[in-house]
Amino acid sequence: MDPFAYVREDFARNTFMSFIGATIDVPAAGQCVIRVPYKPELTQQHGYFHGAMSGAVADVACGYAALSVEPPGTSVLAVEYSIHFLEPALGEALIGRATVIRKGKRLITCRCDILVERDGVEMLTGAVLETVTARAPGS
Amino acid sequence: MDPFAYVREDFARNTFMSFIGATIDVPAAGQCVIRVPYKPELTQQHGYFHGAMSGAVADVACGYAALSVEPPGTSVLAVEYSIHFLEPALGEALIGRATVIRKGKRLITCRCDILVERDGVEMLTGAVLETVTARAPGS
Amino acid sequence: MDPFAYVREDFARNTFMSFIGATIDVPAAGQCVIRVPYKPELTQQHGYFHGAMSGAVADVACGYAALSVEPPGTSVLAVEYSIHFLEPALGEALIGRATVIRKGKRLITCRCDILVERDGVEMLTGAVLETVTARAPGS
Amino acid sequence: MDPFAYVREDFARNTFMSFIGATIDVPAAGQCVIRVPYKPELTQQHGYFHGAMSGAVADVACGYAALSVEPPGTSVLAVEYSIHFLEPALGEALIGRATVIRKGKRLITCRCDILVERDGVEMLTGAVLETVTARAPGS
Repeated sequence: MDPFAYVREDFARNTFMSFIGATIDVPAAGQCVIRVPYKPELTQQHGYFHGAMSGAVADVACGYAALSVEPPGTSVLAVEYSIHFLEPALGEALIGRATVIRKGKRLITCRCDILVERDGVEMLTGAVLETVTARAPGS
Repeated sequence: MDPFAYVREDFARNTFMSFIGATIDVPAAGQCVIRVPYKPELTQQHGYFHGAMSGAVADVACGYAALSVEPPGTSVLAVEYSIHFLEPALGEALIGRATVIRKGKRLITCRCDILVERDGVEMLTGAVLETVTARAPGS
Repeated sequence: MDPFAYVREDFARNTFMSFIGATIDVPAAGQCVIRVPYKPELTQQHGYFHGAMSGAVADVACGYAALSVEPPGTSVLAVEYSIHFLEPALGEALIGRATVIRKGKRLITCRCDILVERDGVEMLTGAVLETVTARAPGS
Repeated sequence: MDPFAYVREDFARNTFMSFIGATIDVPAAGQCVIRVPYKPELTQQHGYFHGAMSGAVADVACGYAALSVEPPGTSVLAVEYSIHFLEPALGEALIGRATVIRKGKRLITCRCDILVERDGVEMLTGAVLETVTARAPGS
């Protein structure tokens, strides 16, 4: 049985994520990987993944990493994030790998690396810190 | 004659912006407004504009506000931004209004308000600070 | 009667603030001004106010702006902030002017301008966005 | 011979750092550790290290980590940082451990963990991402 089925089900209802072709993986509690394969529609004027895509994979990876340490039925909401762009995101896929670094009662802090896969090799293209707020089911 | 034609032309080559249906306005040097009308594909699981859309309008508005204070041919690139989500982005359009608050030789700092238009009224849904780097033409 | 006496009393117990000689003003609910007069001990190697001082005045101004919209007895705690340095902080006094831009049940978001007073004129040297969490008295 | 002597000499001229009793260590190029022993003057109203101290150790650790990858004589300046507070900073010493995660020609990005030493054990209390700008000697 998949202990993170509720995380995947929530992701499946995320219209924008299917619009851009993103997939999710939850390797363990407090971890989440979002992957977006290259499509010309997702680029900016130089052919790189658009900065908005980097923000999207990081924000979504952090949100679901946070959800994976909460019971099913919890609502999570991003409070804020800070994103640092390190290298142009040029490659076959854009990947966000988020990890919970602090779980409080209502606030969860995540760190996320943004990577681009180029010729099968992953390279760091961005770094994110995000605060997520969690609301218990029925509250 | 439009002094910001080069800004609009750069925006027109931004594939992701046309993919989501965004428009641009440059009311004055150092100011830029990006507007995205509501589409179901741009929402998350509760029907609000996806957080990635808030990041996108802010990041793009800051980048073009920065470009508007530089000569044509300059390349601008986001270094980082910090985004704070204030209210759910529920409405007919999502708007980013960016202003340059400091122009250095190579680094430009922008402030951006993210607004949502609901029943014709604009409401603040997010706040952003962004650093942009500029590279002179041919350098 | 001063409606913000509880804010000032909390500030008076803030050891580090007296150590650096800071003063507080709460002009209205949701607003706070922190002022630190120049002292050589508060500078870095070029004679400007140390970056830590900019962080300090902004963080403290945001915390007390947040406290001023909560009932007496509330505890406030900074969750995170993002600070952008605009100009060197060279002058007779360093000032943080914070304003609450969103008050939720438990999370309060503030914007803060950091100014330096030089020859009697205030100049913008930094910009901050901060998230504060509030805990009700006795909870 | 110490290859980072120029980093330590710059630190020694940092008045605010001696005022608070901070020490520096540069274990390798691109790494810097700043340590501040507990003093009552550096606390806030609950006896923890003041948030300004967390900002200070992180900001200074990032600045000198950046300087350690540049030639002697280079000037470094913080552009911005984002700080996330994870746990109250209660302990005998506050420590910032910074690492350069990207070195560009003029912009350097650092990640910094903020730790508190309590009963000889280090605990994570904060996380920072910072952008630093470097100016070559004589430019």
